[in-house]
Amino acid sequence: MATSSSVTVAQALVGRVISGHGSAAPVHPDRLSLPAGFHLSSLGGRALRAASCPIAVPPLRRRISQPQAAAVETLEGKSATTALVEKSVNTIRFLAIDAVEKANSGHPGLPMGCAPMGHILYDEVMRYNPKNPYWFNRDRFVLSAGHGCMLQYALLHLAGYDSVLEEDLKQFRQWGSRTPGHPENFETPGVEVTTGPLGQGIANAVGLALAEKHLAARFNKPDNEIVDHYTYVILGDGCQMEGISNEASSLAGHWGLGKLIAFYDDNHISIDGDTEIAFTEDVSARFDALGWHTIWVKTGNTGYDDIRAAIKEAKAVKDKPTLIKVTTTIGYGSPNKANSYSVHGSALGAKEVDATRQNLGWPYEPFHVPEDVKSHWSRHISEGASFEAEWNAKFAEYEKKYTEEAAELKSIISGELPAGWEKALPTYTPESSADATRNLSQQCLNALASVLPGFLGGSADLASSNMTLLKSFGDFQKFSPEERNLRFGVREHGMGAICNGIALHSPGFIPYCATFFVFTDYMRPAIRISALSEARVIYVMTHDSIGLGEDGPTHQPIEHLMSFRAMPNILMLRPADGTETAGSYKVAVLNKKRPSILALSRQKLPHLAGTSIEGVEKGGYIVSDDSLGNKPDIILTGSGSELEIAVKAAEELRKEGKTVRVVSLVSWELFEEQSDEYKESVFPEAVMARVSIEAGATFGWDKFVGTEGKAIGINRFGASAPAGKIYKEFGLTPENVVAVAKSL
Amino acid sequence: MATSSSVTVAQALVGRVISGHGSAAPVHPDRLSLPAGFHLSSLGGRALRAASCPIAVPPLRRRISQPQAAAVETLEGKSATTALVEKSVNTIRFLAIDAVEKANSGHPGLPMGCAPMGHILYDEVMRYNPKNPYWFNRDRFVLSAGHGCMLQYALLHLAGYDSVLEEDLKQFRQWGSRTPGHPENFETPGVEVTTGPLGQGIANAVGLALAEKHLAARFNKPDNEIVDHYTYVILGDGCQMEGISNEASSLAGHWGLGKLIAFYDDNHISIDGDTEIAFTEDVSARFDALGWHTIWVKTGNTGYDDIRAAIKEAKAVKDKPTLIKVTTTIGYGSPNKANSYSVHGSALGAKEVDATRQNLGWPYEPFHVPEDVKSHWSRHISEGASFEAEWNAKFAEYEKKYTEEAAELKSIISGELPAGWEKALPTYTPESSADATRNLSQQCLNALASVLPGFLGGSADLASSNMTLLKSFGDFQKFSPEERNLRFGVREHGMGAICNGIALHSPGFIPYCATFFVFTDYMRPAIRISALSEARVIYVMTHDSIGLGEDGPTHQPIEHLMSFRAMPNILMLRPADGTETAGSYKVAVLNKKRPSILALSRQKLPHLAGTSIEGVEKGGYIVSDDSLGNKPDIILTGSGSELEIAVKAAEELRKEGKTVRVVSLVSWELFEEQSDEYKESVFPEAVMARVSIEAGATFGWDKFVGTEGKAIGINRFGASAPAGKIYKEFGLTPENVVAVAKSL
Repeated sequence: MATSSSVTVAQALVGRVISGHGSAAPVHPDRLSLPAGFHLSSLGGRALRAASCPIAVPPLRRRISQPQAAAVETLEGKSATTALVEKSVNTIRFLAIDAVEKANSGHPGLPMGCAPMGHILYDEVMRYNPKNPYWFNRDRFVLSAGHGCMLQYALLHLAGYDSVLEEDLKQFRQWGSRTPGHPENFETPGVEVTTGPLGQGIANAVGLALAEKHLAARFNKPDNEIVDHYTYVILGDGCQMEGISNEASSLAGHWGLGKLIAFYDDNHISIDGDTEIAFTEDVSARFDALGWHTIWVKTGNTGYDDIRAAIKEAKAVKDKPTLIKVTTTIGYGSPNKANSYSVHGSALGAKEVDATRQNLGWPYEPFHVPEDVKSHWSRHISEGASFEAEWNAKFAEYEKKYTEEAAELKSIISGELPAGWEKALPTYTPESSADATRNLSQQCLNALASVLPGFLGGSADLASSNMTLLKSFGDFQKFSPEERNLRFGVREHGMGAICNGIALHSPGFIPYCATFFVFTDYMRPAIRISALSEARVIYVMTHDSIGLGEDGPTHQPIEHLMSFRAMPNILMLRPADGTETAGSYKVAVLNKKRPSILALSRQKLPHLAGTSIEGVEKGGYIVSDDSLGNKPDIILTGSGSELEIAVKAAEELRKEGKTVRVVSLVSWELFEEQSDEYKESVFPEAVMARVSIEAGATFGWDKFVGTEGKAIGINRFGASAPAGKIYKEFGLTPENVVAVAKSL
Repeated sequence: MATSSSVTVAQALVGRVISGHGSAAPVHPDRLSLPAGFHLSSLGGRALRAASCPIAVPPLRRRISQPQAAAVETLEGKSATTALVEKSVNTIRFLAIDAVEKANSGHPGLPMGCAPMGHILYDEVMRYNPKNPYWFNRDRFVLSAGHGCMLQYALLHLAGYDSVLEEDLKQFRQWGSRTPGHPENFETPGVEVTTGPLGQGIANAVGLALAEKHLAARFNKPDNEIVDHYTYVILGDGCQMEGISNEASSLAGHWGLGKLIAFYDDNHISIDGDTEIAFTEDVSARFDALGWHTIWVKTGNTGYDDIRAAIKEAKAVKDKPTLIKVTTTIGYGSPNKANSYSVHGSALGAKEVDATRQNLGWPYEPFHVPEDVKSHWSRHISEGASFEAEWNAKFAEYEKKYTEEAAELKSIISGELPAGWEKALPTYTPESSADATRNLSQQCLNALASVLPGFLGGSADLASSNMTLLKSFGDFQKFSPEERNLRFGVREHGMGAICNGIALHSPGFIPYCATFFVFTDYMRPAIRISALSEARVIYVMTHDSIGLGEDGPTHQPIEHLMSFRAMPNILMLRPADGTETAGSYKVAVLNKKRPSILALSRQKLPHLAGTSIEGVEKGGYIVSDDSLGNKPDIILTGSGSELEIAVKAAEELRKEGKTVRVVSLVSWELFEEQSDEYKESVFPEAVMARVSIEAGATFGWDKFVGTEGKAIGINRFGASAPAGKIYKEFGLTPENVVAVAKSL
């Protein structure tokens, strides 16, 4: 049994690396050197034995006879001398400087200022296995200030990750490289989440820390703490200014995420210059108010011991997350550009690079890693293998004793879905009583939570409207983190980014989150990162049209369906009834590499004859047709709550002797992926009389109704009135569909 | 001269009320009863004289002989007795209860809890003129917790606004009413901004307060403080949780907006229940950290004097905005539902309404305003007229002495553009040197700021990338608020909502704001409110495609153009060169009732032959054509930076003997508004061979290329590499356009 746990982790590793949503960038499966103790599934039973083999670990302690080079106390024991630390820190700085210089593009300032905390984290504090970036129990690191990605690439390189070799550093920001302009989890193993859009990284980190706290509470035993890692994050002034960071940090304080440790790179410079021009609040006092523990390291450029002491203190505070404000100098070491915005986002220039080399006493060629630095860092490969091997052994023990829990945990770690899970989804017939799809959605959510161990989520203060409560579980809270109902408060953006963090923590997590569909606007940046970073988040978006009625235009989505249909790598699903809702959830769960948005009605809808889960899986399909030979007189198509209207209009038209096809277009993306033959079987080119009906912008419907057809929809903002009245006033009625159809 | 100032204000009034972006709701110009002293322009010179007439103002003080009914000291002098205040407060509560009950929809909880502060604000503190809701120097009020709109409707009703008569209250949330489900400035005169989506209202209020501080600093003289009003806002727990409120509040603290007074309705309840489940931060301490003055009124349900004292204290603090945390009970007065989420967003139900009537000793019929309450409030009509008349007199003085400043201020108040302003826009020829449209945009911004008194704006920490600095002006800061460069920091969402506040402060304000186009995602909710609330904000969005290069997919917009083309009442403009950039600004300024987004390139673009400002005004037009009789062999169309590619491809195809038309589609919305004849003259139905090219999603292009044509674009996320490389890899080249055109 223990073997298979290794196997699933290795599978997860492979699954993650060989990905790409249509990415043209080449993928290098050959770059996947599996660590000692890890084997692909074909290696079978040998995995555990290999993992248990003793591995030579080089001594953590080195002594050099220079007087200033006293060995320093680190969190994990004695480590490098101060001189060597300094050298390693400068190596990081120059790798960043050199890569940006070669690309003539990038952000050298942050890596130069944050190299000391970066070094201490990756060399002295964090537990990871460079040869298996997906080892489950690793500490997580997020560079929320993603533009400083050369810091992370330099650290991954030094630590021995195969994803960032010297040639990768030299290819920084070039086509097809592993070192893109901002950290991308889907390009660079070792990068946990995709950052760059500011503020989201700290929220991702909150999600990662939440995931750890949840799993630890659920699976740890007094004799076996099988889940136990920290989440570290570096964020800058820009992240601090973004509202999302306050949202997520407020929740982190509320939840008491004690193993979340954030470094605030307080360098007083943003792109427009000194932060004095726009950012004069007292950040630490704000975090105190949010329930964090705060520490200020005033000596971030050189105060290694201060940084170490701060981390030690942060770890000792177990009931609160910690913000370590580290005052640094952006572009530290550059004699003429340090402490100015000019070093933030541009190459230093050859002359200033020389001056910086002079200033920091760095005689090496570009991209050079001095031998002693290389040798010092080399221990992480064996050390990492040991960490993982020890953990594998621990897991084997755990599995023996706690078989059931181990199986659940393994499913979360591997992402393998329990066999037959989809049978739990509710089924409906046209005789089932009419209901709002938001209510039917809740039946699905509860069904899925009972069979999928990594299924959890919640709403942005609309649980009772979005219908998202899991009835068999309590609230995830500071003192009940084993529960699965997340209470996000009115913080949509933070919610989305936290869910991205949860989804990317382990492949078996399936987080869902909810608000009114119109408020996807509030969380759109996080939804886009879900799509880009291949995070399987399920967005449960209710009140999906003017059908919500009286709340009026501020609450009524119009352009939202189209805005997501135009977004890459996301599924926009708008089910029409119970069967399509269940089908949408099936699709959402099965799409491991893309998020899904479910647009759900507030209002009651009948269960329609002809809807099917198989249809949903194809995105668009024929719900009913009384014609022969793929040649109906007219095709009526729509989605969600308007499919009922199309069905009713079809009945009318048929009474009048027309042959009518009704097509449900529940997901345009899935339909687009079908074969041309299938598409032709649904929308035959010869049938030009087509009418679409959807309670949203008609923009985009030309694709399906063509030049001869007509799209019925809403090309203005909504209105405040009872839903039925608005539908009627806006012409979203069977009568109008019939009239329009006849006009063709 | 003074007369015309009255006139323009009256014009502004009329202009505002008779609006509606295609709204189907009826507009009631007949409901516009102009106040004494206000006349339409046809009344000419009589306006001022009328305004100067003494108006009978009823005594502010009333004494009733009940012992508990002592006259209370208010901010503006002696006012009603406590008993009458109580009665007025209960009137507000029951108007809200009754309207929600009748609609069987709405949010009674907030009005019931906030009625005391609402009463004190509108009856004792605020200066306004109910018969001219657009009187320039009025105090502004924003209900950031917009769902509680019945509070505001009740107050406007009592205060004597014609927009909210008894019949309007009875039509709450019904089709075509003036009392929609959330406050909408374009439906209800007296409502300053459109709220409902949480957190934005407080940011709007920051914009309103900024506008006042700016105008006061620019126009006030030691002997004549012609600009002088407060901005009040009520926000709830939901607003406080939203990140945007922290963004905007951080700026308000930074800017020292001393005349911004925010009431935080601290009722401990949100939709999901007690705020304990998701919101346990110390809000006041956070605001202290943001540089606000904070006060806690613990007795918000009944502590009228405490509320009054808090406002007095807040006014005394002139260098900081003030947050008054007012602890209230949601649904105060309802014996069984108060202090629970059940009273937040649903009608109380007949039984509980009765119980509440019993409990608060309210014997009246629904919608009844007791005579003494009515009579007490009636003074606001004459008082408001006096306020305005006094101000008009003051303005007449001002105008005499400070003619030039008065003209500028008047232009801001009235929204009348100075004659010939558009001549300031720069002109270009194909010989002008190639430049990025972001740079050309900066030339336009600077040109406009020199001729438009209300033109001001800035960037979210990207001024030097967005090219948005106004060179003749300094930074708007705490001690230099007369300047016009706004420094928003990395706070896109707050920026957008602040600009909405500025735009809606006075019709002549034209705020612009800027970030990278992809980060419109961060501010999309505010952009949508610009569109809905008819706020003329100009969104200067640079780095508008993969053309930004190395920053990679997190920074490269793909779906964004389409997502805005699908949004109602907004112009999405993507100019191709200098002439089109100037044309886009012309269009943006002239569209007083809708916002514009300009998508601008990071990379250099040539000035093209055939582009024109007139063309931009039509949205789409022929840039070049070598065919005869509206029958080219092929039409190539595109926007922005890809128009150059279309032009080059056309040259190639023409060399090969084809007749080719090149069409610039700079704004789909404007093109849509043209006549069918014009559209046919650009895209003749008979010419089906059409190719579009745009560096974004092809979704939506079917509309123009039809079933026979082809759209070249990007249907995946971008990539990190030099821009030229990405263009080539993605097939956005003249060669590919030629190849595709030939394939048709």
